[in-house]
Amino acid sequence: MTDITMIEAAAARLEGHVRRTPLLSSPFLDRLAGRRVLVKPECLQHTGSFKARGGWAAISALDAAARRAGVIAYSSGNHAQGVARAAAALGAPAVIVMPSDAPRLKIENTRALGAEVVLYDRARDSREEIGDQLAADRGLTLIKPYDEPEVIAGQGTCGLEIAEQAAAAGVTEADVLVCCGGGGLTAGIALALEARAPGLRARPCEPEGFDDTARSLAAGRVLGNDRLTGSICDAIMTPEPGQLTFPILRKLCGPGIVASDEDCLRAMAQAFLRLKIVLEPGGAVALAAALFQPDAVAGDTVIVVATGGNTDAATYTAALERFGAG
Amino acid sequence: MTDITMIEAAAARLEGHVRRTPLLSSPFLDRLAGRRVLVKPECLQHTGSFKARGGWAAISALDAAARRAGVIAYSSGNHAQGVARAAAALGAPAVIVMPSDAPRLKIENTRALGAEVVLYDRARDSREEIGDQLAADRGLTLIKPYDEPEVIAGQGTCGLEIAEQAAAAGVTEADVLVCCGGGGLTAGIALALEARAPGLRARPCEPEGFDDTARSLAAGRVLGNDRLTGSICDAIMTPEPGQLTFPILRKLCGPGIVASDEDCLRAMAQAFLRLKIVLEPGGAVALAAALFQPDAVAGDTVIVVATGGNTDAATYTAALERFGAG
Repeated sequence: MTDITMIEAAAARLEGHVRRTPLLSSPFLDRLAGRRVLVKPECLQHTGSFKARGGWAAISALDAAARRAGVIAYSSGNHAQGVARAAAALGAPAVIVMPSDAPRLKIENTRALGAEVVLYDRARDSREEIGDQLAADRGLTLIKPYDEPEVIAGQGTCGLEIAEQAAAAGVTEADVLVCCGGGGLTAGIALALEARAPGLRARPCEPEGFDDTARSLAAGRVLGNDRLTGSICDAIMTPEPGQLTFPILRKLCGPGIVASDEDCLRAMAQAFLRLKIVLEPGGAVALAAALFQPDAVAGDTVIVVATGGNTDAATYTAALERFGAG
Repeated sequence: MTDITMIEAAAARLEGHVRRTPLLSSPFLDRLAGRRVLVKPECLQHTGSFKARGGWAAISALDAAARRAGVIAYSSGNHAQGVARAAAALGAPAVIVMPSDAPRLKIENTRALGAEVVLYDRARDSREEIGDQLAADRGLTLIKPYDEPEVIAGQGTCGLEIAEQAAAAGVTEADVLVCCGGGGLTAGIALALEARAPGLRARPCEPEGFDDTARSLAAGRVLGNDRLTGSICDAIMTPEPGQLTFPILRKLCGPGIVASDEDCLRAMAQAFLRLKIVLEPGGAVALAAALFQPDAVAGDTVIVVATGGNTDAATYTAALERFGAG
């Protein structure tokens, strides 16, 4: 299982291949949230999301024969791009299984990064079954999007950076809000913070209708979502918390926070106006929670992981047209 | 006059108060430009533009009595915000003289940062006269937007970072494209590169119709623009190169490059799609030159300073609607 030693080993392998994203802030966001808001913009990461970390960590951990044989991943788009980029750079052929309703930009980018893309129907097919079958047929190593120790370790490198950057900013106690799908990033960050910044507490943030992690944490057992489609937050519509990630979240995280789709659009507009970064809806959930649900957060500083920016122009302009006046 | 010693002194005063912006890249932009493109996103700087550097450098250089009396600046918006932020943090009252057609967001932000805003008519009034009069009446120190040695030194700190970051990226020879208005940033960067990275060459980039610097460099003497309004690049519509900046540009810079307004919008869309950063039109001129005029640039790597991101939602969505499909 993933631990701090694995996370630090992943950080060493990622050195020079993945960006150390900064911590951004704005007095205008502080005013809106009623406390200091520090935003880690993983949208500025290679491939436009934190998934470049886990993809690199997992593929760089494979032996030479496994790399030569190739890898496969299933993903709505961000994990796809992270795996495709790492595979191309590390000399592994890559097959990516993507839902047919994934944003066109994510599908095109995955192909442009050199991967073979196989589409499936999100409501009808099981991506896990498709992935397992293709992996068996071609001898590919399956790189799961979150329930995979090396992927969790790779995402955890984001938590190592937060621990260092928070200390440099004089922050020793704070909630760390993380956009949460299957929980790989949240679990990785929680493990890193436990070891390197125990006063910081990871908290999963999810969109309305896809709050499986928040409900599972409250119930103390894994609960699923009623539906599999229908949020604008395509990046984090997962059926239920992972088998590996949930025990970590349950042990280390604070309660989940749920944000409405409208608040995600509002947070995208604030990120545009105040931070000059592009967020996709699923990458803005944590910022939405920090800005518009201040009572759900404790302390005088909140840290927000803005996880990705791979949105279509149409989605983005719709958010700005509704909420871009400030 | 500004020299490398002043720039390094400014860098020491700016430490901890101004962000060290990263160098971003995307394989998609490399493909478009036909060479490696490294982008320094000064839109992520405090106040949304590099002007936070010069503002802090100039006000932090004032003695205690001058700070107490206060400062004045004239600016279409980015210098205004840079000065307002530094003044508030350093305990100086600030009056900002802004054109009445400046983007609403820039005017509002300047007020929200604690400055008193005085509006003038860009076509009819001289901002210099208004500024001089107010400064005399109230005993304020005028912080000029570019023709001021400490401001040039502050902007030059961006060049120190480029020198270090280019070396870390293995780049020893490259054109450094800089969005250019009055030339303060271009001059400061050119001075820093001359001293710390002599294989890098600064090149001013300007919008069509406001190419005073390119024409002045070609002619070897200061030439003005025919008009004072009418570009979407509001941040860099200056009447002519500065008296202090032009001799520096003439000595150190390569030829200027001129980009169309349409190419600036196209570059904004590429920055959205590929880098997940928000650029204003005037902050995208250098990226436009790098992406859409590859023949104007030499070498296998080009460095682009993306100078600001303070644009209204309407301008931004118009750019995405035209060019955001990729």
